[in-house]
Amino acid sequence: MGAAADRRFLSLALALGRRGLGRTWPNPSVGCVIVRDGRIVGRGWTAPGGRPHAEPQALAQAGEAARGATAYVSLEPCAHHGKTPPCTEALIAAGIARVVAPLADTDPRVAGQGFERLRWAGIEVSTGLLGEEAARDHAGFFLRNELGRPLVTLKLASSFDGRIATATGDSRWITGAEARRAVHAMRMRHDAVMVGAGTARADDPSLTVRDMGATRQPVRIVVSRRLDLPLMSRLARTAKEVPVWLCHGPDADPALHRTWADLGARLFACDVAGGHLDPRSVLGALGEAGLTRVFCEGGGALAASLLNADLVDTLIGMTAGVAIGAEGQPALGALGLARLAEAPRFDLAEARPLGGDVMHVWERSRT
Amino acid sequence: MGAAADRRFLSLALALGRRGLGRTWPNPSVGCVIVRDGRIVGRGWTAPGGRPHAEPQALAQAGEAARGATAYVSLEPCAHHGKTPPCTEALIAAGIARVVAPLADTDPRVAGQGFERLRWAGIEVSTGLLGEEAARDHAGFFLRNELGRPLVTLKLASSFDGRIATATGDSRWITGAEARRAVHAMRMRHDAVMVGAGTARADDPSLTVRDMGATRQPVRIVVSRRLDLPLMSRLARTAKEVPVWLCHGPDADPALHRTWADLGARLFACDVAGGHLDPRSVLGALGEAGLTRVFCEGGGALAASLLNADLVDTLIGMTAGVAIGAEGQPALGALGLARLAEAPRFDLAEARPLGGDVMHVWERSRT
Repeated sequence: MGAAADRRFLSLALALGRRGLGRTWPNPSVGCVIVRDGRIVGRGWTAPGGRPHAEPQALAQAGEAARGATAYVSLEPCAHHGKTPPCTEALIAAGIARVVAPLADTDPRVAGQGFERLRWAGIEVSTGLLGEEAARDHAGFFLRNELGRPLVTLKLASSFDGRIATATGDSRWITGAEARRAVHAMRMRHDAVMVGAGTARADDPSLTVRDMGATRQPVRIVVSRRLDLPLMSRLARTAKEVPVWLCHGPDADPALHRTWADLGARLFACDVAGGHLDPRSVLGALGEAGLTRVFCEGGGALAASLLNADLVDTLIGMTAGVAIGAEGQPALGALGLARLAEAPRFDLAEARPLGGDVMHVWERSRT
Repeated sequence: MGAAADRRFLSLALALGRRGLGRTWPNPSVGCVIVRDGRIVGRGWTAPGGRPHAEPQALAQAGEAARGATAYVSLEPCAHHGKTPPCTEALIAAGIARVVAPLADTDPRVAGQGFERLRWAGIEVSTGLLGEEAARDHAGFFLRNELGRPLVTLKLASSFDGRIATATGDSRWITGAEARRAVHAMRMRHDAVMVGAGTARADDPSLTVRDMGATRQPVRIVVSRRLDLPLMSRLARTAKEVPVWLCHGPDADPALHRTWADLGARLFACDVAGGHLDPRSVLGALGEAGLTRVFCEGGGALAASLLNADLVDTLIGMTAGVAIGAEGQPALGALGLARLAEAPRFDLAEARPLGGDVMHVWERSRT
């Protein structure tokens, strides 16, 4: 099989894997394509909830055709006995002749041992192709493996001049329907949607994915040091249907804690630093709970605390053609910078019109 | 000649006309192409300073080939005896058989009389083609004819969160070299560059076009109610080389007025409204002085006063991937809005990456 075909099939496996983003945590979202004599005989991707894995589903489709075939997998196949038998054994048993995968898994229980096991069974293993794309797709899973925290995407939708509401709180709508729809699609590709307590109080958001045919809603997280959130809110009323997780400080009122637990929320006690919930502690707790990808939608104080702690991996702006003026509410809170050289910098990944607004996507600067 | 050829040659005439933008005021910047038997035999565009006009230059190039040819002109040829003989007479004398132009001039001295005169002389006249493009190219000239004020382009370069400096005033550099170069190209296509007094004091800008091979610099305007601008500034030191115009209030210190006049500045007394210079009065004075296109680069107070008075025709944002935070200096001052419905709205015309920054261009909303 030539290099161009390898790239094409592996690229397809990556695309299949991306379908599960936001629905497979704490597992990675993997795609697999089985190719025999240049023809695709099986396809699979990690099922919602993380099981079954991509490989056994693709192998089941391929059946006998898997014998002597090439398996394209978007991540190193697992080699450990977890809740499912290892994928390496399934590939070996099916008679796969060659495995093409971009990257080794960074889960210490896998970490090259999957490839080793395949090679040991006489299967040819090719790695390195499309490594950068795969690293981007699995960034949340890798970050949790390596730093114990989920990937953080921070989205801020604002007026031309960086405001999210007038001084009196009028904020509906700044961006248009198309931008708001794109936000729902982004929520769906994350394990959880997160907002600060101020936003939860001011907007009474539902934080669900709407009009996208979503079969599995992302977890809804509110960061609230004191848990003083409205008990008649949409989040409170629906906490038994779609998960609500609350990250609070050690000084939260025990009665409120009990009330929220009774409402169905899951509670996480986090550390306080400098008068605010420590964002590292919050993300550490969320990583421990299994989250790999968190989509933060503000408000300004939470956004500032994440940026200040260098915890934002991707920054997404939605800018509308409306001017609100300096007395409007800023999209981003105070950062306490004196010099521009200290300011968090991001590299542009994409900028384009989105309906009547502008979407711009930035990645943490590598320089 | 078919419609496709007409469109192609007229489009070329428009492109030639745009070459002079920023250098022909108070005249429009016009382009002309003479075509004989499908071949271009002459091209011209309004010379810097506004004279000679496009038509006589193109006719001179064409010489005898103009007889029986078609002239494509980006605006109705002038019919009045001004400082130059009317272009209609030159076209008639050269034996032009047909004139294609998108629009009638709105100058009351021309306003359809150019087309009338040509028709009267037996020349076929076609109009309407590319009317929208031409209206955009001549927008500044038309606005001055109709409303007595120049077109205003407001450019604000800011951080991701709409800030132009840290709280301590550190602002170099927020956007990158490519965006700053684009700003110089934009300055060149305007008759004048305008800033508020705060920006003039804080940044000591030179407001010239650099590294663009500019042969004619735009006028440099500072809006300063009290004329209390630094006398050792770059603007003060170079006012005799490149024009500096100062718009001031009736209460400006007469001694400062005299000093600035001695330095070479031209002074405009404008009205005050609500404690600030009235932007309508400022633009009216600039229109009276002949300007058709003004490029405003802030600061926040002047930008807000123009937006509030609905005097911004084009809004250009340059957004950098840096976060400064809420205590930074806002790109836009207070607008005093209570409700979002009152906020000035703009329609997106263009959004794209520009170096490492994002450029977004908006036009005054028509809805």
